[in-house]
Amino acid sequence: MPANGVCRIIPLGGLGEVGKNMTVYECEGSIVVVDAGLAFPRDEHLGVDLVLPDFAYLRERRDAIKAVVLTHGHEDHVGALPYLLREVGPLEVWATRLTLGLVKSKLDEHGLLRASDTREIDPETTVLELGPFRLEFVRMAHSIPDAVAIVLETPAGRIVHTGDYKLDHTPIDGLKTDVGRLAEIGNRGVDLLLGDSTNAERHGVTQSERVVGEAFRQIIPQRQGRVLVSSFASNVHRMQQAIDVAVTVGRKVCVVGRSMRKNVNIARNLGYMSVPDGVLIRPAELDEFRPEEVLILCTGSQGEPLSALTRIAYNDHPTVHVDRGDTVIISAKPIPGNELRVHDAINRLAKAGAEVLHEDNAPVHVSGHANADELRTIISLLRPRAVMPIHGEFRMLAAHARLAQDAGVPTESIVLGENGSVVELEPGRPPRIVEQIEAGVTFVDGLGVGDVRDVALRDRRRLSEDGVLIIVATLGGGNGGIAPPELIARGFAEPGPLLDEMRSEAARVLEECLDGDVREIKLLQEHLHDGVGQLIYDRTGRRPMILPVVIEV
Amino acid sequence: MPANGVCRIIPLGGLGEVGKNMTVYECEGSIVVVDAGLAFPRDEHLGVDLVLPDFAYLRERRDAIKAVVLTHGHEDHVGALPYLLREVGPLEVWATRLTLGLVKSKLDEHGLLRASDTREIDPETTVLELGPFRLEFVRMAHSIPDAVAIVLETPAGRIVHTGDYKLDHTPIDGLKTDVGRLAEIGNRGVDLLLGDSTNAERHGVTQSERVVGEAFRQIIPQRQGRVLVSSFASNVHRMQQAIDVAVTVGRKVCVVGRSMRKNVNIARNLGYMSVPDGVLIRPAELDEFRPEEVLILCTGSQGEPLSALTRIAYNDHPTVHVDRGDTVIISAKPIPGNELRVHDAINRLAKAGAEVLHEDNAPVHVSGHANADELRTIISLLRPRAVMPIHGEFRMLAAHARLAQDAGVPTESIVLGENGSVVELEPGRPPRIVEQIEAGVTFVDGLGVGDVRDVALRDRRRLSEDGVLIIVATLGGGNGGIAPPELIARGFAEPGPLLDEMRSEAARVLEECLDGDVREIKLLQEHLHDGVGQLIYDRTGRRPMILPVVIEV
Repeated sequence: MPANGVCRIIPLGGLGEVGKNMTVYECEGSIVVVDAGLAFPRDEHLGVDLVLPDFAYLRERRDAIKAVVLTHGHEDHVGALPYLLREVGPLEVWATRLTLGLVKSKLDEHGLLRASDTREIDPETTVLELGPFRLEFVRMAHSIPDAVAIVLETPAGRIVHTGDYKLDHTPIDGLKTDVGRLAEIGNRGVDLLLGDSTNAERHGVTQSERVVGEAFRQIIPQRQGRVLVSSFASNVHRMQQAIDVAVTVGRKVCVVGRSMRKNVNIARNLGYMSVPDGVLIRPAELDEFRPEEVLILCTGSQGEPLSALTRIAYNDHPTVHVDRGDTVIISAKPIPGNELRVHDAINRLAKAGAEVLHEDNAPVHVSGHANADELRTIISLLRPRAVMPIHGEFRMLAAHARLAQDAGVPTESIVLGENGSVVELEPGRPPRIVEQIEAGVTFVDGLGVGDVRDVALRDRRRLSEDGVLIIVATLGGGNGGIAPPELIARGFAEPGPLLDEMRSEAARVLEECLDGDVREIKLLQEHLHDGVGQLIYDRTGRRPMILPVVIEV
Repeated sequence: MPANGVCRIIPLGGLGEVGKNMTVYECEGSIVVVDAGLAFPRDEHLGVDLVLPDFAYLRERRDAIKAVVLTHGHEDHVGALPYLLREVGPLEVWATRLTLGLVKSKLDEHGLLRASDTREIDPETTVLELGPFRLEFVRMAHSIPDAVAIVLETPAGRIVHTGDYKLDHTPIDGLKTDVGRLAEIGNRGVDLLLGDSTNAERHGVTQSERVVGEAFRQIIPQRQGRVLVSSFASNVHRMQQAIDVAVTVGRKVCVVGRSMRKNVNIARNLGYMSVPDGVLIRPAELDEFRPEEVLILCTGSQGEPLSALTRIAYNDHPTVHVDRGDTVIISAKPIPGNELRVHDAINRLAKAGAEVLHEDNAPVHVSGHANADELRTIISLLRPRAVMPIHGEFRMLAAHARLAQDAGVPTESIVLGENGSVVELEPGRPPRIVEQIEAGVTFVDGLGVGDVRDVALRDRRRLSEDGVLIIVATLGGGNGGIAPPELIARGFAEPGPLLDEMRSEAARVLEECLDGDVREIKLLQEHLHDGVGQLIYDRTGRRPMILPVVIEV
C-alpha cells in the first residue's frame, strides 16, 4: 500500500500497449479502476481468443476496490469487465449512458447483469466521492459517442486521465471535446496528465468524423448497384451518416452481423441513433428489393474470419451476395496484424465484380485518436506539471513524451511506464516509478480462462512450424523382443521412403539400447528422440516435435 | 501448343499476386520465360521458408525454352532462378549488368554458376532473336538500378511487358524511365500491354527517389548520436544517398548484414555505387569510433527475425548496439504481413532510447512503383490495343483495368487473368483467356522443395490452434484385458484433473468397445477419438488433434 497522501498509478493489460486496457489508481487504502478492456490476440498467440489484463493485483485487494469507472464503450476498454466481475466479485460500475447500455448487454450475455451494480455518469454534473478520490468527468469526442476524460482529485494532486479522444470540432452529435472545461481544469492546476498516445507520431490534426459523411454523400448517390458499408459495430456516428445518405437517396437499410444489429438496437433505444420508420429492413427481406434500392451496413471491416463481410466476400453468406456493379465501402483501417485478412476480403470482393473503396483510395475513414497537434493543444489547455503518456506502443509514448518536453514539461516530470510499472505521485514531487509488479496477460482460449500458458503456446508454435512425429515402441515382456516401432507423422512428411527410413532408424536405436542393456523407459525415449531427430534433420533440415512412447507389456 | 501465329501468355507464381514472379510467352514451339522470382510465405504457411512458382508447365516443355529474361534484380523476380535451373536444366539467362551481377552471385551460392549460360543485356542496343520472338529492351526507373521493360515482337503482334517501374524524372543515376523510347514504340503500334499494377489504387504520382535523399540531408547532419539507416539490401540508390550524406558530414559508414554487404560489394565492383576511399569501416572497427562519427547501413527493414536491425533492436547483435540519443531511420515500408514485426522492432529501439524515423513520421521512403497517373501516362505513350494488368493483387489489377478503360481501351480488350490463366493473342483479335492450367505454388521448407503439401499445412494449422493429444492403448493378448491408456498432451492442457478424466474416459470407451466385441483397431481408434474429443470439447471448448494409437500384443 502506498504511504499516506501518496497516489499510486498502475497501468495494466494490453499487448505492448501501455495502460490501454486498464489503469489502477490507489490511495489511502482505496482503489479506483479505470477501464476493464481486453486485447486481441496476435498471430503468435496460436488459438487464443481473447487476452485479459492481469487481475492479480486487484484480486489480492478486492475489498479496497471502490468502483470501476469506464471512459467509453470500446471492447479494449470494457470487454474484460465480465471476467473481472467473475474473478473479484460484484463491483460498482460507473459509465456514461451509451457505454452503460453496451456494457449491460454484455453483462447480460455473461449472466452477470443481476449481480452487477451499474450506475450512470452525466459528464456535466456527476461528481463521485470514492474514498479519498473525488472524480469529475469531461466530454471527449471519439469514434464512439459518450466518451469521457476523468479528473481525479487525490490527496497527492489533481490527475487527468483522458481516455481515447480526438479534438473533433464538428462531431456528428454536436458534442465536441469540452475544451472549455479542460481549460478551466487547467486553470485549477493539473499535477499529472495521463494521455492517449495512439497517434502521437502523426503530424497535424485528425480529420473530423464529418469528412466521412461528405465522402458518403459524394459516393453513394452515383452508385447503380448495391452499396455495402462495413465499419466497427460500435461506430454509431459512422453508421448514422451512412443511414442519412441512404434515406436521402431512398435506399432501404439492412444491418447485417450480430454485433452491429445489437449495437444499432441499443443506440436507437437510448436515442443515440435516429432512423426514420420504414427505412430498416431485415436481411431476409433483401430479396424483395433490387440492388440499387438497398444499402447494407455490415460487420467485418477487420476481415475477421466469421464476420458478415468475410462471408459475403467468400460468397458464403445466407442472405447477402455481391455482384458486378456493386460498391463496397470499408470504412475502417486494419488494426496492425489484420492487413492480410482485409486485403484478402478486398480481392475477393473485387473478383466478384464490386468496386471496393477503402482508406487508401477514398476518404472513407478517419481515426478516432488525436494527432500530435491535438496533443499539443491538450497540453496547452491543461498545463500539467507532469505527463505520463499511456494508450499506445512504446514508440508512440516516446513521441508523446517528446511533444510534452517541447511544450516545456521538465524531462524528470515525464514518466514512460510499462504495464505493471507502479508510479507514485506525492504532493509537490514529480511522479516516479517505484517498482515493477508482475503484470502478464491472461489468455482466454475456448472456455478456459488462464489455463493456457507460455509452455503450451511454445509447443503450439513448435508444432505449427514443423509438425509432430510420434514413435510408438512396444517392448515384449518375456522374450525381451521388440515389435517394429509404429510411426505417426502429422504436419511434416508424406508417407514414403523417409518414413520407412525413420522406422528402421527407430528399430536400430532400440536394438542398440537393448543390446547395451538400456531398458529404462525414459532413457529409451531419449535415445529414440535423438536418433530419429538427427536423421530427420539430416534428410530434411526440419525439427518436428518428436514424441517417443515406449510401452512395456 | 498454341496454333500457328498465336502467342500464348501465362502468368505464374505469386501468392495472390498475378504474374508477379514469372510470365511464360509461347509461340510456334518456342518459349521465352520472363522473370523467375519467388514469393515470401505468409503466416498461414507455417514453417515454410520460400514459395516458388509452379514449374510443371515448363518442365513438360523444357526443350522449347529459348531463354529466361530478367527485368530486374529483386528477389521476387530472380530468386527462383536457381530452383528453375535445377529443375529444368541449364538455360540461357539474359539480364542487364547489375541484375546479372546479383544473379551470378546467387547462382554461385547454389553451385550452379558453372552450369549457367548468363548473358548481358544493354538496354540501348541489345536485340534478341529467340525462335519467332524478337526482343528489345527499354530502361525503366525502379527501386533498384538497371530495370528494363521488354518489347516482344511476336507473330501475333507487339507486346510490351513493363516489369516493375515508376516514372522517376529525377532518378539518382540520371537513368530515367525512357519515355522517348516508349513513345516511339507506341508509334510503331502496341497490340498488348502487360503492366505493373502494384500502385494502381493510389492517386497521383509516386515521389522521386531524390526526395529520400533530401530527407537524409535534413535529418542526418543535426543528429548527435549514431545514425542507423535500414533499407532493402538491393536498394542501391537508397544506400548511395545515405553514404553521400555521411561523407558530407564526415561520418564513417559501416555496412551490417550479410546480404547488404554482398550487394554493396557487387554494386561497387560494377560501378553502380561510389564510395570514397577510407569511408567504409568494418563492423569490428565500430568500437574505435564515437557514436556521432558513424553511420550504419543495415538490413532488417522488414523486421525479419534474424536480420541485423532485429538483432540490434533486441540487443543481440555482436557489434552494433543502440543507446539514448541515437537515430534509426527505417527507409522502407512493411510488406503486408510484416507490420507487427516492424512495429516490435521500432518499440524495442525506442525503449533503448533511439528516435525512430519511418514512413509514417518522416519522408524517409518512397515507393518503387508507378501510381495511377503514371499508369495513365504509360497508356497514353504506348496507346495499346489491349491491356493485361499484372504484378498485383486482384484489386490492384481491377483498378488498373478501370484506368485502361477510362483511357479508351475497349472493355473486351482488357484481360483480368489469374496465375495459370492461358491468354492467347492472335493477329487482329483482342486477347482472351482460353483455359486455366494448374498453377499452384511450391513450398520450400528446410532442405525440401515441394514435399510439404496442403495437407501438412492443414495439420500444422490444426496443431497450432489447439495442440495435440496422443492416446496410447495396449490390448493384452491372451486374456483380452486392457492396460490403462497412456495420454500425451502437447500444446493444450496442463497436467491435472482434466488429464485424469480423459484417461478414465479413454478406458471407459475401450471397455465398452470390447464388451460389445468391437476389436477392429481402426474402429477402436475412431471410438477413442470421438469419445475423448467430445469430453475435451465439453470441458474446454477446444478441439486438439487427437491421435489414438492402439497396440495389440
